[in-house]
Amino acid sequence: MNIVILAGGSGTRFWPLSRNKTPKQLMSVFGGKSMLQRTVERVLPLNPERIIVVTNALQAEETGRQLASFGSDAIFVVEEPLARNTAPAIGLAAAIIERQDPTSIMVVLPADHFIRDEEEFRAALLRAEAAAADWNLVTLGIVPTGPETGYGYIEAGMSQGSPGVLPVKRFVEKPPRQKAMEFVAGGNFFWNSGMFAWRTDVILDRIRTHMPDLWVGLSLLDVPTNLGHLHAMKAQVTNFYSRIEAQSIDYGVMEKAEGVVVLPSSFGWSDVGSWSAVPEVMEAGLDGNIVMDESPVVWLDSTGCLVRGGNKVVALVGVQDLIVVDTVDALLICPRDRAQDVKKVTEELKERGLTDLL
Amino acid sequence: MNIVILAGGSGTRFWPLSRNKTPKQLMSVFGGKSMLQRTVERVLPLNPERIIVVTNALQAEETGRQLASFGSDAIFVVEEPLARNTAPAIGLAAAIIERQDPTSIMVVLPADHFIRDEEEFRAALLRAEAAAADWNLVTLGIVPTGPETGYGYIEAGMSQGSPGVLPVKRFVEKPPRQKAMEFVAGGNFFWNSGMFAWRTDVILDRIRTHMPDLWVGLSLLDVPTNLGHLHAMKAQVTNFYSRIEAQSIDYGVMEKAEGVVVLPSSFGWSDVGSWSAVPEVMEAGLDGNIVMDESPVVWLDSTGCLVRGGNKVVALVGVQDLIVVDTVDALLICPRDRAQDVKKVTEELKERGLTDLL
Repeated sequence: MNIVILAGGSGTRFWPLSRNKTPKQLMSVFGGKSMLQRTVERVLPLNPERIIVVTNALQAEETGRQLASFGSDAIFVVEEPLARNTAPAIGLAAAIIERQDPTSIMVVLPADHFIRDEEEFRAALLRAEAAAADWNLVTLGIVPTGPETGYGYIEAGMSQGSPGVLPVKRFVEKPPRQKAMEFVAGGNFFWNSGMFAWRTDVILDRIRTHMPDLWVGLSLLDVPTNLGHLHAMKAQVTNFYSRIEAQSIDYGVMEKAEGVVVLPSSFGWSDVGSWSAVPEVMEAGLDGNIVMDESPVVWLDSTGCLVRGGNKVVALVGVQDLIVVDTVDALLICPRDRAQDVKKVTEELKERGLTDLL
Repeated sequence: MNIVILAGGSGTRFWPLSRNKTPKQLMSVFGGKSMLQRTVERVLPLNPERIIVVTNALQAEETGRQLASFGSDAIFVVEEPLARNTAPAIGLAAAIIERQDPTSIMVVLPADHFIRDEEEFRAALLRAEAAAADWNLVTLGIVPTGPETGYGYIEAGMSQGSPGVLPVKRFVEKPPRQKAMEFVAGGNFFWNSGMFAWRTDVILDRIRTHMPDLWVGLSLLDVPTNLGHLHAMKAQVTNFYSRIEAQSIDYGVMEKAEGVVVLPSSFGWSDVGSWSAVPEVMEAGLDGNIVMDESPVVWLDSTGCLVRGGNKVVALVGVQDLIVVDTVDALLICPRDRAQDVKKVTEELKERGLTDLL
């Protein structure tokens, strides 16, 4: 098994903690190790042949530093010169792996997701690996725990073919609440986790069919047989990225290809898409308040708040359901139900030219 | 004229900006000079004979540093070893002044008040000086601009005696709203500003009558004729303070003595008693928001907020009427109508032993 970790996201919705150079996956959102480090740790017990971490130029240094802590020679970093969504990143990783072992299984994981039950997660990856061996494009579908409107959904058909997986009927964009409730009631809808498994040669074949431009670019790459020399590809990769379009693997391949299946999974998952997702992954204390770091907090008549004070004392008097994140150079105060608008703050900072805060 | 500035307050309601060592009067609440420095500046055009600043041991160093900026040899600092409310501080200053000039006029001013119209303020002090020369105990009463419940009131009787002043019928504690409205409608009630003027020998005589223990302590002090040697009194003052009780001049003398008059005054005054008073002294911008320092603020759907970000970027998303004060080691978030409860935060910090934040 090869693990491909997509670690190039910019994570503006976790501002002011996340920045261009240290986005969500490189942060310790909940104290301790970063989300990327946890993602790697989580798969190490599976003894993957290789772990390929795809990141971008701005974050490459910090990514390398964090991965060095594992002291493993099976972990490789690939640097994207530009953000081009998931399809080029996955294609590039597939081309690299194919050169080593074309019929191997490739598992794709985002670097910035939360997983509560790691044993069950690894068991799911092994089931996905088995289904992928049957030439399926396997996507991990999370059994919904509620009518979440922040996730895309996958509608599954009746069981057939490989054990444990269901054929995908369609991918559905983030639904309105009413739709989400119908999906959950239906029982055959799953959250689209952005986690995949497939044979390396199969995904490349499907890219050839559905994204021929991308495939041509990939086929021109001269991948070294020794992955220790991956850095020698830098100029080629830059050239390749300058010619291809941004596209997601969902839209580019999964929604169009044959043999796409969903593996229903339940391991306590969240994409931790914004500060408002923190209560899904951290337990609230008294009055529904959560302190995300070691900051001493003085609570007076305050409930449902999320606080990250950067270890300073935070005093909250008579406030409800606020997100409070304080860093050395920026402070955010935002109601929990407005967490999506943090993105707008970063847009405003960009407009004002305060780019060193991004 | 001698000016006595009472500068020993602890100002816990301006936490986290105010601290034991740098309380409100030593802070630049609104940018620029401290409130103490502004208080001194405001009276310098009157060419007072002496300015005596009474402070406490903890704040003495910073007080001295701030006063040194005036380069004046008419400004003297007196250090209280303990907080004993206003009567001992005023008595001590009176004893010091009496040794130089017993029949001189002494004006007492708190160090931490805001005054908008400084010309009118100085004119009022000259009127107070004239009334004080007639052996009155003059208190400056502010003509109320609304039914404020955060101030004490002074009820005046019919005009008689010295021009411009009215006899005081009674002092009234902070009233409930209904009472405050009646007072304002009555037209003969004024806010108790804590500013006074009297002959030095007259106040000492009234202290002798109404606070005999304090008078005995004062009469034992050996005050130098050269105020440059005030520091030589330190041991005496410590001994004196260890024997006297805490008492306000209002309760100890003003509410009991004969010849107490009020000088109705209007110069745009606020005691800036808490963060919620800031809108009285700083102009709000768009949407009723006020930024108290140079912090760049990103406002998204936020109104009526007071922000002091310590010059970091502050992003407020969808919040109303919040006080936000960020410092290096502490952050306060509190609705404007709960500003009085900031005091409770400092009490909690004390209980938790976080005394370095006080």
